[in-house]
Parts: sequence; C-alpha cells; structure tokens
Amino acid sequence: MSGGKAMAAPKLTRKELTDRLGAEFPEASHAMGEYEIEEVWHGGCRLRQRYNARSLRPGGTLSGATMMSLGDFAMYVAVLSAVGWVPLAVTTNLTINFLKKPPARDLLAEARLIKLGKRLAVGEIGIRADGEDDLVAHVTATYSIPA
Amino acid sequence: MSGGKAMAAPKLTRKELTDRLGAEFPEASHAMGEYEIEEVWHGGCRLRQRYNARSLRPGGTLSGATMMSLGDFAMYVAVLSAVGWVPLAVTTNLTINFLKKPPARDLLAEARLIKLGKRLAVGEIGIRADGEDDLVAHVTATYSIPA
Amino acid sequence: MSGGKAMAAPKLTRKELTDRLGAEFPEASHAMGEYEIEEVWHGGCRLRQRYNARSLRPGGTLSGATMMSLGDFAMYVAVLSAVGWVPLAVTTNLTINFLKKPPARDLLAEARLIKLGKRLAVGEIGIRADGEDDLVAHVTATYSIPA
Amino acid sequence: MSGGKAMAAPKLTRKELTDRLGAEFPEASHAMGEYEIEEVWHGGCRLRQRYNARSLRPGGTLSGATMMSLGDFAMYVAVLSAVGWVPLAVTTNLTINFLKKPPARDLLAEARLIKLGKRLAVGEIGIRADGEDDLVAHVTATYSIPA
Repeated sequence: MSGGKAMAAPKLTRKELTDRLGAEFPEASHAMGEYEIEEVWHGGCRLRQRYNARSLRPGGTLSGATMMSLGDFAMYVAVLSAVGWVPLAVTTNLTINFLKKPPARDLLAEARLIKLGKRLAVGEIGIRADGEDDLVAHVTATYSIPA
Repeated sequence: MSGGKAMAAPKLTRKELTDRLGAEFPEASHAMGEYEIEEVWHGGCRLRQRYNARSLRPGGTLSGATMMSLGDFAMYVAVLSAVGWVPLAVTTNLTINFLKKPPARDLLAEARLIKLGKRLAVGEIGIRADGEDDLVAHVTATYSIPA
Repeated sequence: MSGGKAMAAPKLTRKELTDRLGAEFPEASHAMGEYEIEEVWHGGCRLRQRYNARSLRPGGTLSGATMMSLGDFAMYVAVLSAVGWVPLAVTTNLTINFLKKPPARDLLAEARLIKLGKRLAVGEIGIRADGEDDLVAHVTATYSIPA
Repeated sequence: MSGGKAMAAPKLTRKELTDRLGAEFPEASHAMGEYEIEEVWHGGCRLRQRYNARSLRPGGTLSGATMMSLGDFAMYVAVLSAVGWVPLAVTTNLTINFLKKPPARDLLAEARLIKLGKRLAVGEIGIRADGEDDLVAHVTATYSIPA
C-alpha cells in the first residue's frame, strides 16, 4: 500500500483523533486502550494493536475477530482523516481475507481510501504482525458517510 | 434461511459443543460466556449473543465488531456440526453486509452451510435482533478444514 | 431463499421489465437475449440463462464470468422490481462464492433483497443449474440507487 | 499496488502464457482476443482490455460484468505466473468494489498475489482506465490450486 506517499495533511491530527475517540466513545477503554494511532495522513493511517493474551486462539494464533475489528477501526480512522469528525459514519460492507496465522505479537494495520465520494468511502487495509513483511490479513471496507 | 428444515442430526450435540468449546478455548469465558448455542443441526445452528453494554457504539447501536465476531463464530459452530470436532478449522474469507442498526438487545445468528467440501466449507449467516424479522447483518464465510 | 413467499406485486411486471430492458439497453441483444425473466415479485426475481457453448471453460464447466454477470443482472432486476424504473442504479459491491462446477446446462438465478434503503439496496442471489438443488454459486451485491 | 517492484521471473513468460491461453481455451477468441498481457512477473501481471462498444451500458460507461471478468482473468494469469501451467485452477471467491464509472476506453488491470499457499492463492487487482490514475474498480479473489 502506497497511502503514505502523498501524505497530505489529515483533517484531524493524530492527537485530535486520539483525544476525541478516547473521550466520546463509551467503549473508549476498548478502542483507544487497545489501539494506538501511529501515523495519520489525508485518507489513510497506520494503527498498532498491542498484543493481548485474551485474543489468543488454539494454536497460539490471534483470533479472526481481533483482525476484523482492527481492520474496521483503521478504516474508520482513515475516513475521519479525510472527511473530518463524522463519528456516525458506519460500515456498510467489509470483506476480509485471512492470509496467514499471525504470531502472538503486536499487529499493525495500514489503511488507505481508494474512493472518497459524498456518500460512500471505500478503503483497503493491510494487516501485518510487527516486524514482518507479509500480510496476515487484507480487508476492504465501505463506509456510509452521513449527510 | 431454510437450514432448519432438514434438521439431520449434527455430528456433535448442542451439549457436546457447548462443553468442548467452553473447556478447550483459552478465551472460553469470552466465546461461551457471551454466546449460547440455542439449536444445532447438521450443517447449521442458531446462536444467541446476550446483550452487553460494552458492545454499544455512539447512537445506542451495537458495534460492527460484535456482529462480525458473532457471524464468524456461528459459522464455526456450523462447520463443527457437519464435520465433527476440528477445532483448527480456520476462516479464510468473510464478507459482512450491515443492513440496519441493531437495537440494544440480544442478537440471534442463524448459520447454514451452502457448500461442504473436503477442504473448504462455505456458509451464510443471518443476524437478527431478538424479536425482529429483518436482518441487521448478513455474512458469508469460508472455512478451511484441516486434513 | 424464501423471497418467493410473500410475492407482493412488483413495481414493474415481467412483461414491462422484459420490454424495457430489451428496448433501452444498447447491448440488449446480450442481456435479454441470454436471460429470461421467469418470475418477478416485489424485491425479487428468478432468471434463466440459456446454455451457450461460448460460456464453456476447460473441463466442460461454465465460466465464472457467466455466473457473475447473471448474479449481477438478477440483482438489478430485483432492485427494479422494488423501486421501479431506475436504470442508472449501479452495483457498488459484489461478492461471489463459487460452490461447485456447473454442468453445461441452463442456469437459474433467484434474487431477493435483504435491505431496501433510500440510497442502497442489498440482495442475495442463489444460482443453480437447471434441475439441481445445490447452489453452484452464491452472490451478495449492493446497488446504489440514484436520488 | 507494488507487485511490480520485485519483478522476479514468472514461471511462464508473456509469450508462453499468451500462446497457451489462446490455444487451449475453447473461448480463446474471447479471452485472448479482448485481453492482452502487457507484462507478467512472478505473482503478478498487467493486462489491457481493448475498448469494445459491446461493453457499453446506459450512460456511456462500461458494464460491471466487463470489469469482473477482467479482474478474474488477471488473477488467473497472476496465479499461472507463480505456479506454472495449472489451467484447472478455479476461482472460489471474488469481491469487487466499483469505485467510479469508467469512460469508454481501454481498461488496465494490475494483479498481484498477496498469498500463495499450496491449496489457495489470494490476490488483489486494481483496474484503471487507460491514462488515468484513479481506480475504477478493486477486486480481491481467491483461487483454489489443484493438487
């Protein structure tokens, strides 16, 4: 993913996003406790999900649910980075391909929008284990942007 | 979904599934604490996810992650119901369409396999809020079955 | 799929749909030459695609492209059946699972809407070979409805 | 997509692929008449689909079926480029997001594998109109590789 190349300024900075998401989400301890926004640009971001033993599955791998939630949340942040603060943007569709079993380690998700319309935004998100090149999962998602 | 019509006997009963999933998953408190297998037949099942305030999102709706996890787990139970105890069956692909905002209430997921091959199983899962007819989300998922 | 159960009257009858689709599409010979609308109701339809040797692939099976096109077109007809004549409705997202190799025979697609909003409609489509019960492919698709 | 970066040698050259696909597919005039393999590397390729008035839809845009077929075929060539000549490799799952209406012009599809396992290959494909930067469609697809 090449989202980082252009790096136009996001509508909300990393600090603004972290503060607002932490303050306004009832489940903030969940979302912003597990996730850290490492970098954000216009139309994209990179999130880190800290390793948590609760996400382990039989075989020492991380649960699919962990990766789906991370991918969805990274897309949400990418939408906010391009549109501004629209907390009621909602996912309408998400497809995930699980590519290899992630090790018990931090995950990194890099999201970039591939379409930004007035009503719909579409993005793709690659998820890697920290320190590895291969993707462990690949997500495409569509968000509906309220008027 | 008409999975319930045929209702051939599952390879594992509801009680066997509930006991084994609860015992062998490290995150059992998660999976089998939130989910209840209401009914299981060969190639399908109906799960209930008890309402939990932690799953709330802004606007009083349930998070997308909640529905994705429920859909994926219902598919897992449907695979076990048809193949027997293969705990290392893994999701390779999952697509979810979010159809309407679920109210703050229990969710019911009904899964049925639409393909059961030697290596791959494909299923569809409808998710409803308790007491409602309309789907709140629709999932299709593919599982890889270990040899 | 149980779309046929309710069978409320469609906004456009089978004859109206067949005539208008045949008349107004430049590639009409394609669309309405290969496809026949067998039945239509409010929010759903059943189409037949006549067997055509040009769709054959190595191994005597029908091409995936054939099934994708059929599924997409069945969804289009289902949208028109519920919304009326909105020819510029367009697919925004389509997921297809190929379940078994279809024989060299007519295909039947049954579509039903699972969401009908003001801006988006979501449907699922099951595709079978004529005379068989098993699905050869399963499609979910989202259409954007122009204002 | 960065598939072109590494550019390891493909298992089959552009000429070998073009010749074999043209010779062995009954519908060859279809596949290799419309498509041209512009470049191929290990795990990826770029195809051109020549503009054809038959693919037009109301509004002067290209049909969704055109883009689905192109994306699926580009993935097929990417699989062959990495695995060698396995003509019976089949699509098991394909998701397409339509991003903007393509103009009446040649289309270019660039495919790259994001997973190459023994049984399954997963890839993503970006589709552009000739001379434009924005994607008109984005595809992810899974192929099953025969033993």
